[in-house]
Amino acid sequence: MLKNDLLLRAAKGQEVERAPIWLMRQAGRVLPEYRATRSKAKNFIEFVKNPELACEVTIQPVDILGVDAAIIFSDILVIPEAMGLPYQMIEAKGPWFENTIKTKADVDKLRIAEAGDLDYVIKALQLTKKELNDRVPLIGFAGAPWTIFAYMIEGSGSKTFSKAKQFLYTQPELAHQLLEKITQSTINYLKGQVAAGANILQLFDSWAGVLSEQMFYEFSLKYMSKICDALSPLVPVTVFAKDAHYAVQKISETSCNSIGLDWTINPLTARKQAGTKTLQGNADPCLLYANEKKIIEETHSMLSAFGKNRYICNLGHGLYPDIDKQKVKFFVDVVKDYKWE
Amino acid sequence: MLKNDLLLRAAKGQEVERAPIWLMRQAGRVLPEYRATRSKAKNFIEFVKNPELACEVTIQPVDILGVDAAIIFSDILVIPEAMGLPYQMIEAKGPWFENTIKTKADVDKLRIAEAGDLDYVIKALQLTKKELNDRVPLIGFAGAPWTIFAYMIEGSGSKTFSKAKQFLYTQPELAHQLLEKITQSTINYLKGQVAAGANILQLFDSWAGVLSEQMFYEFSLKYMSKICDALSPLVPVTVFAKDAHYAVQKISETSCNSIGLDWTINPLTARKQAGTKTLQGNADPCLLYANEKKIIEETHSMLSAFGKNRYICNLGHGLYPDIDKQKVKFFVDVVKDYKWE
Repeated sequence: MLKNDLLLRAAKGQEVERAPIWLMRQAGRVLPEYRATRSKAKNFIEFVKNPELACEVTIQPVDILGVDAAIIFSDILVIPEAMGLPYQMIEAKGPWFENTIKTKADVDKLRIAEAGDLDYVIKALQLTKKELNDRVPLIGFAGAPWTIFAYMIEGSGSKTFSKAKQFLYTQPELAHQLLEKITQSTINYLKGQVAAGANILQLFDSWAGVLSEQMFYEFSLKYMSKICDALSPLVPVTVFAKDAHYAVQKISETSCNSIGLDWTINPLTARKQAGTKTLQGNADPCLLYANEKKIIEETHSMLSAFGKNRYICNLGHGLYPDIDKQKVKFFVDVVKDYKWE
Repeated sequence: MLKNDLLLRAAKGQEVERAPIWLMRQAGRVLPEYRATRSKAKNFIEFVKNPELACEVTIQPVDILGVDAAIIFSDILVIPEAMGLPYQMIEAKGPWFENTIKTKADVDKLRIAEAGDLDYVIKALQLTKKELNDRVPLIGFAGAPWTIFAYMIEGSGSKTFSKAKQFLYTQPELAHQLLEKITQSTINYLKGQVAAGANILQLFDSWAGVLSEQMFYEFSLKYMSKICDALSPLVPVTVFAKDAHYAVQKISETSCNSIGLDWTINPLTARKQAGTKTLQGNADPCLLYANEKKIIEETHSMLSAFGKNRYICNLGHGLYPDIDKQKVKFFVDVVKDYKWE
């Protein structure tokens, strides 16, 4: 039994005493403790593949920041790797794939990943679950199929992901075949995460925003919806489609439990569109550069707009590495100390 | 008298026989003819500062693509340069400023630019106006104050513009002083463009999307609105705030004439929010990678959604350099040949 199950109750739409809070990229460079652990690994990929180190940084923010959940430290691009498309993480540049997907032969060659292909993540989850000792829920996650697809075609980050979108426009059937393979792999992977102890899951569609509305529904939401159908009978699932501002209602029509919002979304508008689904978000990460007065003001206004129930407090995107750890802690405390009406 | 004044009539909300079309970045790398002209200059900055070359590439798309307007070839960052903050354009990386704005002393040191400081753009406009011989309208433009500010603080492009946003959160009063100086410079510059022959103006807020809704109103729209008030009595003004999906109604409340939309905006929703203002946009640039059948299908659907009047056809962002010139021409022809009901 979890000692603090606020996050799970909020995700399921049950009553809470106060809104839970966790932060995207809470296990990250914003903590000096993370950077110390990170320096023990030769490079980022080795770091991700080391269950002991992953466990260590996963738990740090629970101890240091007092957040209401741990999110397993990993990377969304472990899926392409498990499917047969390895990548490197280039310092200050981001992910880079030596090979990318161009043809039907490339798609056919990819295997559908099993949870066993990602045993280092599974081990990290098991270890973390044990170390957490039921203090807070453990969040598992994966990239949304479209975002994974985008990297597999583009081969790196991009402002426009124009190669990946070109693929959708010129080879839509092959795109669907690849998205289907990624979806099956992701379902296998997430089921493994749940078996290893994940209490709740989040799908990150980091590059939803480059798609038009119709393309988002056809090439992204369709596959996230399949993943929700497979996983939400087991644990709550959150869908976070960054910059898909038009999609709150359509996301709420899937079997997801909660909907992540970026900071360009008005909480009251989202509430109207989301039916009874829980909302998660959505402070601007840059708010944490401000002074305490401004942080209190903006945070109170956000909490009051979302309301206490069916709400998970978070940022609208990940923490930026140069944000002061004390400010992050301050923000968490402001949320935890808020006097709900 | 202009032989083709479709764009001006559409911007003013007057009746048209068909919707006008022009394309953001039509004077750009998508045309081999542009690349040939570009190779005559030592670097990008020299290119921008050469009125003869700028005139040449401005007119190319009118001759080659048959668009209904020319847009003066220039760069939004000529304003910081004219204010005393020069930049370089680094191949494949984008703009880079050796000095950035950090303190009140930095802001105080900047001068308010006069049109005369940008005589190379004024000359390019005069030359183009003469060469165009009234075939189509000539569009002048400037960056929105927030976007210019973002580069002046950040010093380069950025996914998050977190330094520029940090400045807004930590030094809001100084930010307003700088934005005011940029606004005054931009008004002087755009008045000079009109005097030199620009028939219509566009403000590009390329980085509106990194701001939250409230911050967009406070730090961006307020200043675009001032520019509209100063210029729209002279010529029609279009405001294009990329990714500010929530702002169509608020933009429509300024004295602008038309509102640019990116491809994530639903035309019918925008129509409801925009009152009687003209809308401009909003095809996904990647559509031009598709086959002709798909281009026809999507373009017809877009045209029918916007309707014939109070509409300027365009993309939702600039042309990407690797798009096939023949496809661009095909898209322009599809729009011009559309049978309006």
